[in-house]
Amino acid sequence: MLQRNPAERGFEGPVVACIQMEPHVGAKRENVARSIQYIEEAAKSGASLVVLPELTNTGYVFADREEAFALAEDLPGGETVQAWADAAQRLGVHVVAGIAERDGKRLYNSAIFISPSGRVGVYRKLHLWDREHLFFEPGNRGVPVFDTSLGRISIAICYDGWFPEVYRLAATQGADVVCVPTNWVPMPGQPADRPAMAATLTMAAAHSNGLMIACANRMGTERGQPFIGQSLIVSGDGWPLAGPASCDQEEILYAAIDLQRIRSERTLNTFNHVLRDRRTDVYDPMLGTGWPSSRA
Amino acid sequence: MLQRNPAERGFEGPVVACIQMEPHVGAKRENVARSIQYIEEAAKSGASLVVLPELTNTGYVFADREEAFALAEDLPGGETVQAWADAAQRLGVHVVAGIAERDGKRLYNSAIFISPSGRVGVYRKLHLWDREHLFFEPGNRGVPVFDTSLGRISIAICYDGWFPEVYRLAATQGADVVCVPTNWVPMPGQPADRPAMAATLTMAAAHSNGLMIACANRMGTERGQPFIGQSLIVSGDGWPLAGPASCDQEEILYAAIDLQRIRSERTLNTFNHVLRDRRTDVYDPMLGTGWPSSRA
Repeated sequence: MLQRNPAERGFEGPVVACIQMEPHVGAKRENVARSIQYIEEAAKSGASLVVLPELTNTGYVFADREEAFALAEDLPGGETVQAWADAAQRLGVHVVAGIAERDGKRLYNSAIFISPSGRVGVYRKLHLWDREHLFFEPGNRGVPVFDTSLGRISIAICYDGWFPEVYRLAATQGADVVCVPTNWVPMPGQPADRPAMAATLTMAAAHSNGLMIACANRMGTERGQPFIGQSLIVSGDGWPLAGPASCDQEEILYAAIDLQRIRSERTLNTFNHVLRDRRTDVYDPMLGTGWPSSRA
Repeated sequence: MLQRNPAERGFEGPVVACIQMEPHVGAKRENVARSIQYIEEAAKSGASLVVLPELTNTGYVFADREEAFALAEDLPGGETVQAWADAAQRLGVHVVAGIAERDGKRLYNSAIFISPSGRVGVYRKLHLWDREHLFFEPGNRGVPVFDTSLGRISIAICYDGWFPEVYRLAATQGADVVCVPTNWVPMPGQPADRPAMAATLTMAAAHSNGLMIACANRMGTERGQPFIGQSLIVSGDGWPLAGPASCDQEEILYAAIDLQRIRSERTLNTFNHVLRDRRTDVYDPMLGTGWPSSRA
């Protein structure tokens, strides 16, 4: 395990922990129990916000919709959320974790936000990946931002991070930190000797928006599908504060949540601020673009 | 010089060349003459599209607005465009190059698109960097896409690349290749041992949009301002085809423009396509987001 004790690293103020772990498909009670051991370890080491991977409780590679349906839970009353909420309250931490959500006959690839006081919020993955389309509905709750004592926290899941609009929606709603429960898989064309494209996308989004982004990936191979690990935490200037983690080990990454630093990183010089410099007059799709243009 | 002969590298079909060179502020005739030598060299080596840096003809670090005004030219009739258009026609190449544009009493940090048949288009930098605000007006011609025999070509300049919307506007208008004349400078927080943040932003934009992106940067130090070189050409999967170039040498990068490859790279698997997967229903800023939400 890397960077196990943030206090030893001289962090002051709140700390985020990203748990890189390997859930096993179908083994829900074991997965949740192990995730709570990790939350306890992170809390003991000083974390006030703990991020867990996508679909932490169920695992990822469902054989069919029936298997996913049987493992999913109603939110917020289901047993997994109750267990995580109990841990959050007992340990005084915020938790963001991936979970399979059941809503009547519909399933969502969701992430739950839990505060130590028992507040619960839900994000539903907007951009489904590959065979997820067979099991889940696309998210329909937008990009939420939760106001907390640690800062304003938003959530994206895995392939959502391929869409710069997701981070823009978080940033323009005032988010400071985006938590990313993820199950990153190998991408086509990825050279073996370079950091994952997921890291490149995360760094670019953090830099372009002045956002801290905390990604907790899973590792291991499930039913033939490999996952790439390499969890990481990036600051608002786009550079990693912790990680990328290993490709194949369970471990915890820690980084200080320094709101002054994150917000300062949006200012690049006397004249430039990454969010205020946006040309929304030009981006508006209703107004059109092109050359020669009526806007000339 | 690296990769000087695309034919030796087995390229078939059209080739883009990015010229990394060092203009000198105020020395317009010398800058243009040297740029034409490079266009000739690239054309001899098989290039059909040549990208030159931002403000190739004038240099970058103007002492004041008067100096910029004196060096800028009316478009498309000015002497620099005439010289480049003559070269483009004589050599049978397309040219995209940065130029200081004068329009009445207004100045723009522009890029010119020139076809071998004499077609001329203009892009005006949308996002001004630092002291450019003192000399130039922000662009007012949107993001143009030029239909050519090589594919659909768009343009962005330097700090424009910090705004994912620019690449989205190019991609959603059908661009295949974005040419980026640039004068990248060192960014705050840049670790010495890592690729430039500009490369990270370019790779992310290429991958998220399935766009080939060809960046020609300058190098050298002008009036105390260093430039970082590291020109590069990225394919639609986000990985470099050529470069990053050196930090401090004049050189030419070459890469094949393979439209089938670029367009194929937008499809990630049976279910996913980076452009078609966009959730425009959620992104529309007029509809709002957040949780709990009326869209739930």
